[in-house]
Amino acid sequence: MKRSEINLTRGVPPTDVFPVEDLIACSEAALSRDGSVLLQYSHAGYPPLREWIADWYDVGAERVLTGNSSLEVFAFIVQVFASGGQRAFVESPSYDRSITLLRHNDAAVVGIPLQKDGVDLDLLEQELEKGAPALMYVITDFQNPMGVTTSLEKRQRLAALAREHDFWLVEDAPYRQLRYEGEDVPSLWSLAPEKVLHMSSFSKVLAPGLRLGYVIGPQSVINKLADWAVDSHIGPVLPTQGMVYEYCRRGLLDENIERLKEIYRPRLGAMLTALDKHVPDADWTRPQGGFFVSGHLPNGCDIVDLQARAAEEGLKLSDGRGFFPNPADGQGFLRIPFCSLTPEEIDKGIARLGHLI
Amino acid sequence: MKRSEINLTRGVPPTDVFPVEDLIACSEAALSRDGSVLLQYSHAGYPPLREWIADWYDVGAERVLTGNSSLEVFAFIVQVFASGGQRAFVESPSYDRSITLLRHNDAAVVGIPLQKDGVDLDLLEQELEKGAPALMYVITDFQNPMGVTTSLEKRQRLAALAREHDFWLVEDAPYRQLRYEGEDVPSLWSLAPEKVLHMSSFSKVLAPGLRLGYVIGPQSVINKLADWAVDSHIGPVLPTQGMVYEYCRRGLLDENIERLKEIYRPRLGAMLTALDKHVPDADWTRPQGGFFVSGHLPNGCDIVDLQARAAEEGLKLSDGRGFFPNPADGQGFLRIPFCSLTPEEIDKGIARLGHLI
Repeated sequence: MKRSEINLTRGVPPTDVFPVEDLIACSEAALSRDGSVLLQYSHAGYPPLREWIADWYDVGAERVLTGNSSLEVFAFIVQVFASGGQRAFVESPSYDRSITLLRHNDAAVVGIPLQKDGVDLDLLEQELEKGAPALMYVITDFQNPMGVTTSLEKRQRLAALAREHDFWLVEDAPYRQLRYEGEDVPSLWSLAPEKVLHMSSFSKVLAPGLRLGYVIGPQSVINKLADWAVDSHIGPVLPTQGMVYEYCRRGLLDENIERLKEIYRPRLGAMLTALDKHVPDADWTRPQGGFFVSGHLPNGCDIVDLQARAAEEGLKLSDGRGFFPNPADGQGFLRIPFCSLTPEEIDKGIARLGHLI
Repeated sequence: MKRSEINLTRGVPPTDVFPVEDLIACSEAALSRDGSVLLQYSHAGYPPLREWIADWYDVGAERVLTGNSSLEVFAFIVQVFASGGQRAFVESPSYDRSITLLRHNDAAVVGIPLQKDGVDLDLLEQELEKGAPALMYVITDFQNPMGVTTSLEKRQRLAALAREHDFWLVEDAPYRQLRYEGEDVPSLWSLAPEKVLHMSSFSKVLAPGLRLGYVIGPQSVINKLADWAVDSHIGPVLPTQGMVYEYCRRGLLDENIERLKEIYRPRLGAMLTALDKHVPDADWTRPQGGFFVSGHLPNGCDIVDLQARAAEEGLKLSDGRGFFPNPADGQGFLRIPFCSLTPEEIDKGIARLGHLI
């Protein structure tokens, strides 16, 4: 009997958590009330949504820009600030799509090794001595792919270094609201609003198909990015912005986040338990939220070899090398997403992984 | 008594033509049937919409890529084919946002003067002698800003030159379906499908807020663009793609285009009549469709001066210089959109214009 496949690769929400009925009702309400605005061209997005996000973050609306995904917003940031061959620092490992996007826009990517409490500050300072970057891209909460959260001490030091060396910290925070245990750490942005561009999106807290991202930053930067956005796409897709605004306005977003946390918390617990039980020798991270656990494989185990052997056993694994600016650094690295699997699937998948290692 | 302002600047549809009720119903139907797909990540867009567009153009779905506006799709084309400082030819004048986008992506923009039946082929051949461009961007039907349509003879010659000198023709065709008089001219794409990337969108035939554009081209090019798109935004916004698919599937798009033509045809007629009556000395174009009429002002009239004097009379005019790769060429150029004004407003606005000139 062929074993059912277990997929430990994709960092996406399970489709059965999407609040489809509520979104249908919100779409209808938004288009009925404001169809002539939502179906026309806009510039910086749907103004009521921009204002709602601004209120949520307790800033003025002029400090918020929305776009078709936070990846698109990041593209605008890179194109405005780093596309002339400037240096861009990233955590190593980091989100593979952000590394690719930086390179497509001709930024010179420099990886700073990521530890379990944030980047290695000594190595960061060494790189800064060679020259400040245009920007440093960090995922401070429940990092993709490692799952680690940067400590308050390291955040404070990052903020101080950004001031001292005059570069932008781009804080990507799509998982920040999904904390299953422990206490929030102040965002980088709250520590240095004048040096931080704080990005997030509705992909993980509502639904990725909406492709609705945003950035909060100093007004002068938001103005520049907004001008660039207009020249790039005139305005973002609006009917979905109306739908999401209505969803937020009705108070449903907070409820949804609580609901998702109840679904994902036991999955994280099951993942950590299964790893302790089946693969105790690797140095797994122990996240308190987000989508990912990761570790370096024990015994010099090679990810490409493991991936091939796992496929034969009905287990899909990610090739971790793409998360590293220098791919060879990821030879023994494994990222494991846990949100889209049930606790039973997680135990079964990790048991297979332990057997293979 | 202050005169009511008449706006002759924006090339946007009037908001009262948007079929809001139908779109609400289509949004609900699409999300009810396929919410788990429309709310999740995708790569090349919503497959049923891609297939519907492919059928509409009688090609395979692998030859269609959708994106968040045709301007975004054009950005992907430019980034893949012309962002290394390559030459890009455009009609002079051309759509100002496309010129800006080319320059933002480091293409070297070369304007080829546009005549009333398409670009000046002698000047095009002279430029080709200096070196083939990576691409040539043309708006063959009811051009923005001139309103002219490229003749069949010139299309055939463009296709032959693209083959001979091996460059891409990017045919932007957002107005093609909005012909109010006369007969369709075969698209460039139908004449040379192996050398043409044919772009269009739902902005003018349905609603711009949807930001739904697409490109049809050879499969190898579509594959390259699709990979680039994934690295740029993962996938486009999907719920609106579901809404538009449902709208098309129900046969409503063709009906809507016919309805829009009935609304816009008398506006074009009123515009041409008013220009003949109030400003007979300028060399106005005489489009048979689209959104724009244009002309060079008589008597050495300067657009900036005219714009300032018009503003005092409650008449908003466009500064035509932005449509020209060399802005000085547009010193006496005026683009006049006619779709979003009633015949009465058109007559009143053009009477004011005639008085000012």
